[in-house]
Amino acid sequence: MRKDPFKPAARVAGQKQDVWSIVNEAAASSKVSDVVNMGQGFFGYNPPQFVIDAAKGALDRVECNQYSPTKGRPRLKKALADAYSPFFGRTLDPEKEVTITTGANEGMLSAFMGFVEPGDEVIVFEPFFDQYIHNIQMPGGKVVYVPLHPPEKGATQTTSAGDWSINMDELKAAINDNTRMIVLNTPHNPIGKVFTRDELQAIGDLCVEHNIIILSDEVYDRLYYTPFTRMATLSPEIANLTLTVGSGGKNFYCTGWRVGWLIGPEHLIQPVSAAHTRICYSSVSPLQEATAIGFEEADKHGFWDETKAEMRAKIDRFVAIFDELELPYSDPEGGYFVLVNMSKVKLPADYPFPEHVASRPRDFKLSYFIIKELGVAAIPPTEFFTDDNAHIVEDWLRFAICKNDDVLDKAKDRLRGLKKYMQ
Amino acid sequence: MRKDPFKPAARVAGQKQDVWSIVNEAAASSKVSDVVNMGQGFFGYNPPQFVIDAAKGALDRVECNQYSPTKGRPRLKKALADAYSPFFGRTLDPEKEVTITTGANEGMLSAFMGFVEPGDEVIVFEPFFDQYIHNIQMPGGKVVYVPLHPPEKGATQTTSAGDWSINMDELKAAINDNTRMIVLNTPHNPIGKVFTRDELQAIGDLCVEHNIIILSDEVYDRLYYTPFTRMATLSPEIANLTLTVGSGGKNFYCTGWRVGWLIGPEHLIQPVSAAHTRICYSSVSPLQEATAIGFEEADKHGFWDETKAEMRAKIDRFVAIFDELELPYSDPEGGYFVLVNMSKVKLPADYPFPEHVASRPRDFKLSYFIIKELGVAAIPPTEFFTDDNAHIVEDWLRFAICKNDDVLDKAKDRLRGLKKYMQ
Repeated sequence: MRKDPFKPAARVAGQKQDVWSIVNEAAASSKVSDVVNMGQGFFGYNPPQFVIDAAKGALDRVECNQYSPTKGRPRLKKALADAYSPFFGRTLDPEKEVTITTGANEGMLSAFMGFVEPGDEVIVFEPFFDQYIHNIQMPGGKVVYVPLHPPEKGATQTTSAGDWSINMDELKAAINDNTRMIVLNTPHNPIGKVFTRDELQAIGDLCVEHNIIILSDEVYDRLYYTPFTRMATLSPEIANLTLTVGSGGKNFYCTGWRVGWLIGPEHLIQPVSAAHTRICYSSVSPLQEATAIGFEEADKHGFWDETKAEMRAKIDRFVAIFDELELPYSDPEGGYFVLVNMSKVKLPADYPFPEHVASRPRDFKLSYFIIKELGVAAIPPTEFFTDDNAHIVEDWLRFAICKNDDVLDKAKDRLRGLKKYMQ
Repeated sequence: MRKDPFKPAARVAGQKQDVWSIVNEAAASSKVSDVVNMGQGFFGYNPPQFVIDAAKGALDRVECNQYSPTKGRPRLKKALADAYSPFFGRTLDPEKEVTITTGANEGMLSAFMGFVEPGDEVIVFEPFFDQYIHNIQMPGGKVVYVPLHPPEKGATQTTSAGDWSINMDELKAAINDNTRMIVLNTPHNPIGKVFTRDELQAIGDLCVEHNIIILSDEVYDRLYYTPFTRMATLSPEIANLTLTVGSGGKNFYCTGWRVGWLIGPEHLIQPVSAAHTRICYSSVSPLQEATAIGFEEADKHGFWDETKAEMRAKIDRFVAIFDELELPYSDPEGGYFVLVNMSKVKLPADYPFPEHVASRPRDFKLSYFIIKELGVAAIPPTEFFTDDNAHIVEDWLRFAICKNDDVLDKAKDRLRGLKKYMQ
């Protein structure tokens, strides 16, 4: 007889409480009734109307409500190949070099499931998007961490997010014969850094030298405020081992649609498709069709220029409060997150933090305090670091600025309340 | 340096060509230009208008386009708890006893990922839904097969699908101390059998005796033409170890929406939710909302009665051709698949089957021949058996009858052409 019928598998057991539920619980008990949520990176507004209309149109068509091919709807694969071929500088084959997944998240899981055997190592930069870690561990992979280092003067003056840096010696030291893949994220969440061509070239050359597959998470690829280079474009040798990850949810303001994709050479895409088929079978049909139409029509609507200009304007609008408070931040080069350094904020010594917050680094206390006292939610970034390196960011908080302007203004008004804790 | 950078992981490598692509290839090269596809179980018509309208309404709401909670939208969990509490004979807690997944498929994967450790055994009845196997193997589980046996006279006369039977001694022999879970499917795909209360009680009692978790795939739970019993309702002890799987796609004719769920006691649901979060993070938001509204309004529209009556009428309409041809079939007790015995059909001895069909059991040849010569696609069910037991069904074909009536009529006209191969 089975002795432990209800014991969860190790892969899902024994996690500490995640940052999202801590933040949500704090918000529910805030002194302010309507907490402004700048924590999670969902959009505070709808997709553009031409994409919404496309989704509604798809819902009227029988074939758009039934199973899609496991690798994705042909129309979406073609729309992506057409949209990305100019960026990649070569003609992408929609049938062999593009595969659709259930969001970028499940796409990355499919990549790990497609290539990682138990014991294989995957290099991840800190800070990392937290799902990477579970997704690497699920097929038995071992995560090897390499930290990004904050700008030297990041605690005392506002600097470019581009000044966060990789120490290439640390990266080289992390590589060995078991290194299977490396995960890159540019534009970077939560830092807002866009990796330079030189940085990417150095990383890519190392991967070619050691035969390491590059999984380049480029889900914020339409939001950059400095020149943006795609890893797969640096050389044919680098392209040969690079999988590029994209997201309809991030591109078109619909994080709940779960439409993502991977682009890469056939020998990398095929195992990803095979893994995706085993994980989700196929992805959501009507919203794939709408995403296809989104790509077909975006240029006509001037959407790609508009999205970048609007997001940059939101950043400028919001960071004004930190300029006013003289709190240094990392000025984003891409994406929609702003990291703010709060070392000048003094938390009351006797503040009653609950145990699950008190036991975490200072950024958790900062986050909890600002939610409870001021009614603005931001994310503590040590959640995206290992314990060893958490100290690097324990004075910082991450704000998601993909919200309506009136929400940003309300948050700014409230954050002005920090002044009295900065004496 | 990594020697094998592009070698796929074992879990996705080296499969034989799957039945769906074989059937699709045959269809593309048929002598008949417009092959009637009764292979895959997608619907040939749209979801009911009140569900389509609900989806369109959700697309206009900001929060319905962004991330849902990882465990699912509260409205959908409540709608499911409200809809299923009467069936389960107790009040289900929507927060603790219901979790939403990206289709039933990813829900079942989440159950295996939540409980199966490498080396654990999972019992699966043959024929099986082919995704079960990959989903059990992904966390390192070992599949142990127990065959369902066809009715004794199934090759010579039409019998009830309920006459397919389990040999309880074979099931008992499959159980040992490593047995972690058993997968049940009722109404059954592809057989059309609805397990009787006595059969379920015998299986359930065995599972209680041996502490085996029951994963009861009940995605066709609204389509039954004989009394239907839910495994989780048999006793508190059985309910305590039963996870019930449901599907919005099967319930509301939208297999491409990818909205599924699991219902069960908290100690089983929690690890499933945790696994789902790591696999897909969250599920598609606007179609979760639409599915919630579907459940809220289905009774008002008389939908559940209508769906059953309509599907049974389609079965009756379609099987008339087999009565006419005197080809025996298993008369379905539930679902929308019909298994037909083709032992009377003589395939031309010199027919030019391609190698990937010639090397498979006779049902693959039957399927290929009927697609090529008559223009009707059906699925060879040996695909859903292990090689050892494939002989059990090598004379049968599976037809999906969830198609418009004119499509069914066209298929019947064409299948009449079988007569000349039955002399």
